[in-house]
Amino acid sequence: MASVNRNYLKLPGSYLFSTIARKVEAYTSAHPDADIIRMGIGDVTQPIAPAIIQALHEAVDEMGSDDSFRGYAPDLGYEFLRSIIAEKDYKDRGCDIDPSEIFISDGAKSDCGNIQEIFDVNNKIAVCDPVYPVYVDSNVMAGRTGEYDESLGCFRDVIYMPCTRENGFVPLFPKEIPDLIYLCFPNNPTGAVMKKDALQGWVDYARSHGSVILYDAAYEAFIAEDDVPHSIYECTGAKECAIEFRSFSKTAGFTGLRLGFTVVPKELEAGGEKLWPLWARRHGTKYNGAPYIVQRAGEAVYSEKGRSQIRQQIAIYKENARIIVEGMKEAGYEVFGGVNAPYIWMKTKDNMTSWEFFDYLLNEAQIVGTPGSGFGPGGEGYFRLTAFGSRMGSIRAIDRIKKL
Amino acid sequence: MASVNRNYLKLPGSYLFSTIARKVEAYTSAHPDADIIRMGIGDVTQPIAPAIIQALHEAVDEMGSDDSFRGYAPDLGYEFLRSIIAEKDYKDRGCDIDPSEIFISDGAKSDCGNIQEIFDVNNKIAVCDPVYPVYVDSNVMAGRTGEYDESLGCFRDVIYMPCTRENGFVPLFPKEIPDLIYLCFPNNPTGAVMKKDALQGWVDYARSHGSVILYDAAYEAFIAEDDVPHSIYECTGAKECAIEFRSFSKTAGFTGLRLGFTVVPKELEAGGEKLWPLWARRHGTKYNGAPYIVQRAGEAVYSEKGRSQIRQQIAIYKENARIIVEGMKEAGYEVFGGVNAPYIWMKTKDNMTSWEFFDYLLNEAQIVGTPGSGFGPGGEGYFRLTAFGSRMGSIRAIDRIKKL
Repeated sequence: MASVNRNYLKLPGSYLFSTIARKVEAYTSAHPDADIIRMGIGDVTQPIAPAIIQALHEAVDEMGSDDSFRGYAPDLGYEFLRSIIAEKDYKDRGCDIDPSEIFISDGAKSDCGNIQEIFDVNNKIAVCDPVYPVYVDSNVMAGRTGEYDESLGCFRDVIYMPCTRENGFVPLFPKEIPDLIYLCFPNNPTGAVMKKDALQGWVDYARSHGSVILYDAAYEAFIAEDDVPHSIYECTGAKECAIEFRSFSKTAGFTGLRLGFTVVPKELEAGGEKLWPLWARRHGTKYNGAPYIVQRAGEAVYSEKGRSQIRQQIAIYKENARIIVEGMKEAGYEVFGGVNAPYIWMKTKDNMTSWEFFDYLLNEAQIVGTPGSGFGPGGEGYFRLTAFGSRMGSIRAIDRIKKL
Repeated sequence: MASVNRNYLKLPGSYLFSTIARKVEAYTSAHPDADIIRMGIGDVTQPIAPAIIQALHEAVDEMGSDDSFRGYAPDLGYEFLRSIIAEKDYKDRGCDIDPSEIFISDGAKSDCGNIQEIFDVNNKIAVCDPVYPVYVDSNVMAGRTGEYDESLGCFRDVIYMPCTRENGFVPLFPKEIPDLIYLCFPNNPTGAVMKKDALQGWVDYARSHGSVILYDAAYEAFIAEDDVPHSIYECTGAKECAIEFRSFSKTAGFTGLRLGFTVVPKELEAGGEKLWPLWARRHGTKYNGAPYIVQRAGEAVYSEKGRSQIRQQIAIYKENARIIVEGMKEAGYEVFGGVNAPYIWMKTKDNMTSWEFFDYLLNEAQIVGTPGSGFGPGGEGYFRLTAFGSRMGSIRAIDRIKKL
C-alpha cells in the first residue's frame, strides 16, 4: 500500500506567505472597499524595464518563426546568459567563476529548496533565526530536521543561530559544528548585511570544519555601502566551501518572469565527492530549463540600457526604504535594515506578538506586513515591512501608522 | 563534515539525452559539414502557433505597464488557466476534475521527477521496461530503488514490468504488488497505447491494493484511435488512486516555453493521508509558479484559433510518423507505434545492440535516434525515432536508411 512521506506532516501550519494571503483575502472579503497597502510578501511592483520588454518581444518573435524557433534549452542554461553573468556578476568583481559553474534556473526559491537533495540526509543544518522559511521547510520535508518542538517553535535537530539586536543580526559561530550552513546577506528578513571580514570568517570556519555554506545573495543589488561583499566568492577560499544563489526577482523585477541561477564551483567537495556533477545530474533529471524568452530577458538585464533602467528601479525602492525607516523612527519604532536591503525590520508596538501586530496593522491601518515570528522563534516580537511598494504607498503607510 | 547524498552515486552514467547530445557534438566537431537529421530527443521543431505568439506579445506588454504588471503568480497557477484546463481537458471528456485539483508547473518532467518526494522512501515503485528514465532516476536519487545491478541493468528494489512485442508493449500486473505504479500512455518510448478496458483494469488493480498510479499523459494530443482514453480519469474510480501529468510540450510545441500541469484529486489518499495538501505544500515551498506570460500562452492553446493551429501542427507530426513507419517497414524493419504517438519503436538491424545501431545510423546516415537500451534493459535491441522533425527531414531520413 502506498504511504506518504511523513516528514511533511511535521511541518507546522502552512507556508508563511500562503497564510498571510489567506488572512488578507478574508479581510478584503469582509471589507471589499478597504484600501490595502501591501508591504508583506517581498513582491516587486514596478513593471519590467523597457529594454527587457523589448528583448522579450524579440525572443517571442523568434519562437514564432521557423528559422529561429528554439525547443529544449541546454541542460544548464544558454551560453549567452551564463557568459554574461560570469563576466558582469563575477569577473568584474574579481571573482573567478566560469560560465560552466553557473546553473540557470527558474529562481532562487526553487534552487534554495532543492539544493539540500544532493547532501546526505544525516547532514546537520544551521540556519539564522529569524530565517527565510524555505531553508528549514525543505529540510523538514527531506527528514533532516527531526521533530518540531511546539513549545520552543523549533525543530530539534536544526542548529538555530540567533540573530539579534545585540549581534547586529549577524550570527556567531554555533557551538555544535554544522555540516550545511545557510547564510543570506543582505538578509531576509532583517535587512542586515555581513561585512567582508565577517563573511571571510565564515568561509574560514567552513573550510576548517569541512562544512558547506549555502549562500543566498538574492538581494545583492541593494547593497549601498562599501566593504559589503556582493558575492561570497569575493572571499578567499570560498570556491572550496560555498554554493551561491542569485535571483533576477529583486534585481530586475522578475518575480512573475521567474529566473535565477546557482553557482556550484567545480572544485567544491563534500566528504571527498564533487558537488558539481551531482547538481548537474539533478538539473538534467528533474528540471528542463528556464524558458528561452526569459533567458533572453535575463541577458537584457546586463545590457547598457537594461542596467541603467534597473538601477533607477532599485533607486526607487531604496528611496521607499529610506522613507519607511525614517518615518517609523519618527513614529517611535525601533527600526533596522533598509539601507543595503529592501527589508525593514522593526520591533512591534507595546510588546505585541508578531501576529498580534499583523492583525493590528491590517485592521487599524489596512497595511499588510510580515510577522517576524513567521521567520522563526527569534523573530517573535518583530515585524518586517518591504520597500517594494510605490513611493506614494510608502508615504501613505507611514502617515497611517503615525496617526495610530 | 558535509557529505553527499550517496544515492546519486548509484546512477549509472549520465542522463540519457545528455549522453546523446555529447555523442552528436563529438560527431559534428569531427564532421563540421555533416547534414544531421535529428530524430533522437523528443523535441518539436515547428514554431509556436500564431495565436499563442499573439498572446505572448500581449502578456509581455502587460508586464511592461504599471497598471497590468504581474509579480508572483498564485501558488498553484492562475485561475484563468486552471479553469480552461478543467473545462476543455476534463469536463468535455466527461471527467470531473475541479480547477483547484490542477497544479500549473514548468513541465511534466519536473513534476514526474518531483512527485515521488511526497511518498514514503520505502514505497516500492513499478515501472514499465523500457521506460522514460526520469521515473527511475528520480527514485534512485531519493533512495527508493536499492543498488544498481550491472549485470541485469536494473535496480534491485524496482519492479520492472516488461513491455514486449508479445504483450503489445502493455504491461501485465506484476507478481509483487507495487506501492507506486508509473504508467505513460501513449507510451514513451514505444508509442503503444492502453485501451480503455485495460486502463480500467489497472485502476481497479490499484484501488484493490491501495497503490497509487502516476499517470503520464504527455502525449495524449496524438491519440487518433477511438477507445483510447485521453485521461486516466475517464476510468471509474481513478480519482481515488491516480495522479495525472500533462504537458504543453508536445501538444503545442512548448518544449522551450515550459508549461505543464499535474492533477491531484482532493479525495486521493495514500495510507490514509490525503495527497493534495502535500503536493500543495511542495508547490508552495520549493516552487514559485510558471511565468505569467507562459501561463497566458497556455490559455491561448485552448482558444478557437489556438486549437485549430495546434491541430494542424500535430497533423504534420502524425504525417511524419506515417512516413517513417511505412518507410521503415519497406526498408525491412519491424516497426511499432507511430499511430497514436509521435514515437516510432523498432527492432535494430541484424541484431545490433541499441548503441551499436545508434552509432551505425549516426556514422552511416547522419541520423540521430535514441537507443532503446537507454530506456531500460527491455529496450535492448530496439531503437526509437521521433516524428518531430520536418516532413522533408522524415522523407530524407527514410531515403538514407533505405540506401544503407
